[in-house]
Amino acid sequence: MRRVIDLNCDLGEGFGAWQIGDDEAMLDLVTSANIACGFHAGDPEGLLRTLKAAKARGRAIGAHVSYPDLVGFGRRAMSVPYEALKADVLYQIGALSGLARSVGAQVAYVKPHGALYHAMSASEATGAAVIDAIVELGGSRTLVAPANAPVLDAARRKGLNTVAELFADRAYRSDGSLLPRSEAGAVLHDADTIASRMVGLMRDGVLDDVDGRPLKLDGGTICVHGDNPSAVVIARHLRDALVKNNVEISAFAQQAQVAA
Amino acid sequence: MRRVIDLNCDLGEGFGAWQIGDDEAMLDLVTSANIACGFHAGDPEGLLRTLKAAKARGRAIGAHVSYPDLVGFGRRAMSVPYEALKADVLYQIGALSGLARSVGAQVAYVKPHGALYHAMSASEATGAAVIDAIVELGGSRTLVAPANAPVLDAARRKGLNTVAELFADRAYRSDGSLLPRSEAGAVLHDADTIASRMVGLMRDGVLDDVDGRPLKLDGGTICVHGDNPSAVVIARHLRDALVKNNVEISAFAQQAQVAA
Amino acid sequence: MRRVIDLNCDLGEGFGAWQIGDDEAMLDLVTSANIACGFHAGDPEGLLRTLKAAKARGRAIGAHVSYPDLVGFGRRAMSVPYEALKADVLYQIGALSGLARSVGAQVAYVKPHGALYHAMSASEATGAAVIDAIVELGGSRTLVAPANAPVLDAARRKGLNTVAELFADRAYRSDGSLLPRSEAGAVLHDADTIASRMVGLMRDGVLDDVDGRPLKLDGGTICVHGDNPSAVVIARHLRDALVKNNVEISAFAQQAQVAA
Amino acid sequence: MRRVIDLNCDLGEGFGAWQIGDDEAMLDLVTSANIACGFHAGDPEGLLRTLKAAKARGRAIGAHVSYPDLVGFGRRAMSVPYEALKADVLYQIGALSGLARSVGAQVAYVKPHGALYHAMSASEATGAAVIDAIVELGGSRTLVAPANAPVLDAARRKGLNTVAELFADRAYRSDGSLLPRSEAGAVLHDADTIASRMVGLMRDGVLDDVDGRPLKLDGGTICVHGDNPSAVVIARHLRDALVKNNVEISAFAQQAQVAA
Repeated sequence: MRRVIDLNCDLGEGFGAWQIGDDEAMLDLVTSANIACGFHAGDPEGLLRTLKAAKARGRAIGAHVSYPDLVGFGRRAMSVPYEALKADVLYQIGALSGLARSVGAQVAYVKPHGALYHAMSASEATGAAVIDAIVELGGSRTLVAPANAPVLDAARRKGLNTVAELFADRAYRSDGSLLPRSEAGAVLHDADTIASRMVGLMRDGVLDDVDGRPLKLDGGTICVHGDNPSAVVIARHLRDALVKNNVEISAFAQQAQVAA
Repeated sequence: MRRVIDLNCDLGEGFGAWQIGDDEAMLDLVTSANIACGFHAGDPEGLLRTLKAAKARGRAIGAHVSYPDLVGFGRRAMSVPYEALKADVLYQIGALSGLARSVGAQVAYVKPHGALYHAMSASEATGAAVIDAIVELGGSRTLVAPANAPVLDAARRKGLNTVAELFADRAYRSDGSLLPRSEAGAVLHDADTIASRMVGLMRDGVLDDVDGRPLKLDGGTICVHGDNPSAVVIARHLRDALVKNNVEISAFAQQAQVAA
Repeated sequence: MRRVIDLNCDLGEGFGAWQIGDDEAMLDLVTSANIACGFHAGDPEGLLRTLKAAKARGRAIGAHVSYPDLVGFGRRAMSVPYEALKADVLYQIGALSGLARSVGAQVAYVKPHGALYHAMSASEATGAAVIDAIVELGGSRTLVAPANAPVLDAARRKGLNTVAELFADRAYRSDGSLLPRSEAGAVLHDADTIASRMVGLMRDGVLDDVDGRPLKLDGGTICVHGDNPSAVVIARHLRDALVKNNVEISAFAQQAQVAA
Repeated sequence: MRRVIDLNCDLGEGFGAWQIGDDEAMLDLVTSANIACGFHAGDPEGLLRTLKAAKARGRAIGAHVSYPDLVGFGRRAMSVPYEALKADVLYQIGALSGLARSVGAQVAYVKPHGALYHAMSASEATGAAVIDAIVELGGSRTLVAPANAPVLDAARRKGLNTVAELFADRAYRSDGSLLPRSEAGAVLHDADTIASRMVGLMRDGVLDDVDGRPLKLDGGTICVHGDNPSAVVIARHLRDALVKNNVEISAFAQQAQVAA
């Protein structure tokens, strides 16, 4: 039974005049903020605002690195060779770190975004580029990757801390992978269902897969969405249900610091 | 009489498939490398190559920050408000620092590029955005700005180290400002003239302005260009002439470190 | 007294995952659609959607050309030289025309956006670049520019059709220029005030300037905003008030076609 | 035996301050100019220069459309969905057409670039997006695609004119596809070999594949490269050899016009 869990959310995903989601509302609910780095979203001035708001609430900050694809919001697979991808990841973590340092904060972890997040699990070379970037940058940043993904092992073999991620509002296949968004039932919308699934997962270590069979899953952070008003409601409901069931909400990055 | 001077050059100014200049040849000649940060030039993979080459030679590394204008190579004035500009500068220094750290190097100074370099001298608000970015980032990065520019004083008042920059191949007006490139005679092309002007300036502290009158100028770094084959020849000639006249070529950032 | 007027609105101003305003709601109200061209906003797929919606309602289509500045939404002044700016305008009109032709529509007019709209009025060279682009492209596209701006005369001297633009929700200075947004009272928010000012202007040819003195203004199109829900309400209110006062709402481009 | 052939080259592939190749030298040699459209290369001002130079020599002009990937020069595969890709192609053809019309020229054909060129052959959906863009734009633009590629048939079924393309300096596999650049011997460098292969192909309709076996190939245009000084020499040598062997060099687009 899990007594402590982290909640994370993708933030800073506007760009210039364009806004998505309510970063302040979500920062009141989550413990870890995955903040865009300018490649799929996030202009420097907007990122600085989100970083300030995260710092003011003591949230852990992660670099939400992406393929360079503003128009596709980083959701489109791209064949970026190893060297270029490693440099892209270094550039993005560095850029967010520069902004973060100016508000007295630090980038504690790296969670790839969109197509890169998926490619990191599917392709060893892609995973290696992300891992090697974090390793070569130095420091002690944690890699966040899907529960059960081989990239978690690969990262640990290179000495990285890792955290497995669970998705509150997504259906899982029997192998522990996410049912693709293109399939019916891939995304859950009912706040009660979402909350009770996650409470059950924290309690029992299993949830129902898409075929209704118990699936064993373990992870240290739950991803919630914040890009529309109902998402904020769902996230609040989930948080309340976890707390009511005696699961403490705490940033994994700060758990590690306390442990260390 | 000046016995030590730094030579700097703008480097890393390719972008993807496009290359400008011969970074390796110039790194053999200069002591400080102003490296692009992606806003006017410089893709992460190419920047990493230039950083490795600079690190291998022990060169000091500067962030050559710019307005966001790839198509205009950062040469076009833009009205970027204070908050946005400060965040742009933080983002760029951070990005280059991330890449630099992965090769064991550090960003020792900041030299704005093109239109931002000029605006920083002409507009107090622009200068303040650059200065405040460096201050708020923390650390001890030096600001490089034109000799005689008010922004040097403004930066020192905020506690920054500064270095005044001299241009080897440019004509100066009587007020110490550069003759704009649009005017005849603004850029010098003869290697002997360039070298003897700089040798004279190091020896006497004055050079002839555009009207032939002596102009007092003091600076800790000389900018040389490297974006074409004849520029490399000019830079080598200048370096040789300085050395022959007992002026030591040494990075200002490393002079400071030794002094400190 | 004016019996016919055009209503125009800036549309297609999303970019990829980011949306601004409700293009469909505004297309039900206006007669001319200023559609972004990708330089300040507007990805090709989104532009195609807006063009289809405009074509379905028979709206006149204008190219809302801009400086290349996505992150600044085209609102920041840029020093783009004449040749580059002319080419930028040609590129954008062409791009929008390609998309428009695929849905059986045509680009009937050009209305520069944001900082370029203002620069076109303030700088003769900037105006000339826009004008020459339209002239050299051929065809018979109309230029939309601020009422009273010298660029209208310059355009007519080069043989272009022009339409002067009025702003429904902006305060005017005594010289016919807009009170800058930075000053108090620059933007009107009350739907009744806005509607009655425009009804009065159609009836009398004058409205009160910022000092309460009558200002003579003539224009063939009124700009309404559509980038937030209350803007849609204001636009609907204005349209209803004009119609009730026997002012016909009709696209200037289609008026011209009927006349010709 | 083929008595007439077109020579084409990729041009306009600089971007702002960055230049690649010598467009003027290549335009003296080829009959068709594939001109970049801004997505992998080509800023509007530079494209206008290349278009003027092509028009001055009476060259046929093609839109060299690409995935949106400046930093990767359009060489990286991207998963762009059908609707987005179709709109991207329309946007690019339109943009180049706008520039072309201003110099009295027209876009006669479309040749996708880099990763899109390959994807068009490998993926039916990608090919369909390109084809449908050309069809929906109207006019009578020809599609250029690899000799033997299924996309040629697909395009003809939708009523497009097509021209099959041959590569002067590339090795072919036995199925008529190009040996990937990553394999040894993929690119030929000897001017004599290149010229005699193409002369033989024109005369006999076959060339040796990578295993030395005769491969039947038919195409209406030969691609030559122009991105470095030796490429210009190779292209000139090829052209001279063809002419000497009584093969006329003539633009396919203009052949069609004469025929029609």
